[in-house]
Amino acid sequence: MNRPKMMAWLLVSAALAAPAPGLTAPVESSPAAQAQAQSATSPIRLTRHTPAFWRVTFSNPPLNITGPAEIRRLAQIVDQIEADASVKVVVFDSAVPGYFMAHYDLLKPLEDSTGMAPGPTGLHPVPDLMVRIARLKAVTISSIRGRASGIGSEIVLATDMRFASRERAVLSQFEVGAGFAPGGGPMARLPRLVGRGRALEILIGADAFGGDLAERYGYVNRALPDADLDAFVDGLATRIASFDRQAIADTKRLVDQASLPPDQEMRAGWDAFITSVQRPAAQARVQALVARGLQQPGELERDLNQQTAKYRE
Amino acid sequence: MNRPKMMAWLLVSAALAAPAPGLTAPVESSPAAQAQAQSATSPIRLTRHTPAFWRVTFSNPPLNITGPAEIRRLAQIVDQIEADASVKVVVFDSAVPGYFMAHYDLLKPLEDSTGMAPGPTGLHPVPDLMVRIARLKAVTISSIRGRASGIGSEIVLATDMRFASRERAVLSQFEVGAGFAPGGGPMARLPRLVGRGRALEILIGADAFGGDLAERYGYVNRALPDADLDAFVDGLATRIASFDRQAIADTKRLVDQASLPPDQEMRAGWDAFITSVQRPAAQARVQALVARGLQQPGELERDLNQQTAKYRE
Amino acid sequence: MNRPKMMAWLLVSAALAAPAPGLTAPVESSPAAQAQAQSATSPIRLTRHTPAFWRVTFSNPPLNITGPAEIRRLAQIVDQIEADASVKVVVFDSAVPGYFMAHYDLLKPLEDSTGMAPGPTGLHPVPDLMVRIARLKAVTISSIRGRASGIGSEIVLATDMRFASRERAVLSQFEVGAGFAPGGGPMARLPRLVGRGRALEILIGADAFGGDLAERYGYVNRALPDADLDAFVDGLATRIASFDRQAIADTKRLVDQASLPPDQEMRAGWDAFITSVQRPAAQARVQALVARGLQQPGELERDLNQQTAKYRE
Repeated sequence: MNRPKMMAWLLVSAALAAPAPGLTAPVESSPAAQAQAQSATSPIRLTRHTPAFWRVTFSNPPLNITGPAEIRRLAQIVDQIEADASVKVVVFDSAVPGYFMAHYDLLKPLEDSTGMAPGPTGLHPVPDLMVRIARLKAVTISSIRGRASGIGSEIVLATDMRFASRERAVLSQFEVGAGFAPGGGPMARLPRLVGRGRALEILIGADAFGGDLAERYGYVNRALPDADLDAFVDGLATRIASFDRQAIADTKRLVDQASLPPDQEMRAGWDAFITSVQRPAAQARVQALVARGLQQPGELERDLNQQTAKYRE
Repeated sequence: MNRPKMMAWLLVSAALAAPAPGLTAPVESSPAAQAQAQSATSPIRLTRHTPAFWRVTFSNPPLNITGPAEIRRLAQIVDQIEADASVKVVVFDSAVPGYFMAHYDLLKPLEDSTGMAPGPTGLHPVPDLMVRIARLKAVTISSIRGRASGIGSEIVLATDMRFASRERAVLSQFEVGAGFAPGGGPMARLPRLVGRGRALEILIGADAFGGDLAERYGYVNRALPDADLDAFVDGLATRIASFDRQAIADTKRLVDQASLPPDQEMRAGWDAFITSVQRPAAQARVQALVARGLQQPGELERDLNQQTAKYRE
Repeated sequence: MNRPKMMAWLLVSAALAAPAPGLTAPVESSPAAQAQAQSATSPIRLTRHTPAFWRVTFSNPPLNITGPAEIRRLAQIVDQIEADASVKVVVFDSAVPGYFMAHYDLLKPLEDSTGMAPGPTGLHPVPDLMVRIARLKAVTISSIRGRASGIGSEIVLATDMRFASRERAVLSQFEVGAGFAPGGGPMARLPRLVGRGRALEILIGADAFGGDLAERYGYVNRALPDADLDAFVDGLATRIASFDRQAIADTKRLVDQASLPPDQEMRAGWDAFITSVQRPAAQARVQALVARGLQQPGELERDLNQQTAKYRE
């Protein structure tokens, strides 16, 4: 990138990223979350329950913010899933209370993202990851509790099935409210999943969808009572893990053919994000959000979809 | 068109179009509706609430019948939306009690429709209008109260999102019941929106869908209690109007790529309508409906989907 | 097929197909079902209620198992529908208590299926049948009571609309649980009907879906109280039968263009089934199911989706 070009994330000073007063004891920083924060070496954990049933757990408190480092870690995990001859089903979930994944890291320098080498598909590593998750021979299931917003929503949309806590899941694509286009492919996936009308409401209304409404819209397969979610998802994964690996792969391959968007649409989505996030309108909105607590545990992140609409030029 | 060819609408005599006895004080002709009828110069009103938030209100009582003149007026409004650098969101609603839009004008001579010059897309002005509404950079939202049938349903399907009064919205494609194919593109749009099975039921069952069932089918985004509909739609429009115009347009453009039908399918739909409506079967059915009160306020229009099935050859 | 190749169904001995002890008085063998079993010449009945309204009734107790002979009979019926100038609507239902159609015949020699001559579309007779049902000019409606699993689900997915008994319908694609891919096209149809996420759950979770959940997923148009199902479906069929045949065909043709999968995807589905069912994994699972009562009335068939998951290698 050229020097003169404005870059949204570079303009964000480190000072703004420091915790704001009154946010030192947020709800999210429970002892459990703090304990998880100390295992800094495993922001994304891979657990092999059996050779056939694996689990990917986002454990990067307080918000499961995902940036270039986490994308690299996820790509490694996808490499492992692709290379393994036994795995049949992979569950994606979160160990962070309140958050499946808040959104992409908007405080790191933009070049950290734009400078990444392309992935195996030839796409930038973010759309590359989304495309490769969707094409895994193994079946992937998202178990959603807490906010899955921005890239959190995009990752669950890349997995094969989505189950949500009725009381505690929140799905959203908040990006348009913050002045830029989503980058991980929801413009390609949502219209094919929920129809054009609901896709445009999710993407351009950019509001939060609880479990029940997400089910009514088809954004998730089903919303389940929070107390039942884990048993349901583990039961389904265990069931699929008992099936024949080749029969699963044969069936999924033909569903892929009928339903996956062309890679070019995923590429176009990432390009739209990178272009739009550098515009002055996006920079002003993101900086206003940072000043009010973006990427810090607290009210702004918990209520991000409403907070974006409070911006005044 | 050649002389010898039969033309459904030409065969309808002016006498048949006169009000039938006992229909002089229909429910639809409330004082408000009569007042609106007097503002004959604005059958379709354009209101600019703010530079970013516009509203298109169908106010052509008693039924919001739409024919060539209204198509021209709508095309002018679409020209204005396309040309304006500030508008971000446009709400479509109705000021006519009981009707969002009953259907296309079936009493005007057919040549008034077939003789129209093509629109900017090269399509006939009706499919041209449908295609251009769907491709606007601004987001469009239908607020549906009363019957949205035939071209009323087709216009709400051309807009980006649809919200319906739970108690007072009725959506339908009644056309097959009247002997002809719908012309404004629902064969292209509905299967992509609600799936093939429900699309075929809507189009060939040709019955009326209330707000709740329309939501269950995905025909509308959501049905809301009638008392909440206006506040909800205005709130969503105000919210979107506060967002960045370019971020909205970038996002919508990619959703368009993933979800809009090819223009050729819209052209084929109009051709199917024009061909089918001239057949003797359609002429006989339409004339029977006219004799029983078509395009007049009253029971036949209110219950059109059931009335079509009473035809006997 | 070459001799050395293993063939799943050939390996199933006649002994295994004999009734297991304790299954001599199954629930399904009611007097009515036994009576129907005696009319062996009409496992699939064609009834012409009127010239415009026909009915195809599966009456092959105790399970409505469908194999090469039934496919041939169905193809003849489709020939008749295609050739008739009057028929507008065809209802598909079952006269067998508990079963719309259990699944494909897995006890006949595989060559009985693979050796069939291609149908008019050039496809194998199973996908040929599915493709031809979907393209009929007449509208087809499935009325689902009892289990519609495997090819039963595939046939209802080939029809234009599906209505299910809320209490007594069960839809499923059980195949992946039995070690092989479904063959009648659900990988092509389900993602387009219910979205990728729910399609993958149905196909690879391979579990049973009752009427309500099938409606929520869009697998059926609607679930209705069992007591209302017949009147609803007959009412809809009678209504459609009163409409103009050409208007129906014109409208359906354009919906077909917008929503039918390419024939090549249907071909690929059948090939995936034939290939996968011959693998040792499938053979072992199918034989284990046969040993426990497959294709016999009783608990295993009634609970097939759960029983498949009990297999241990």
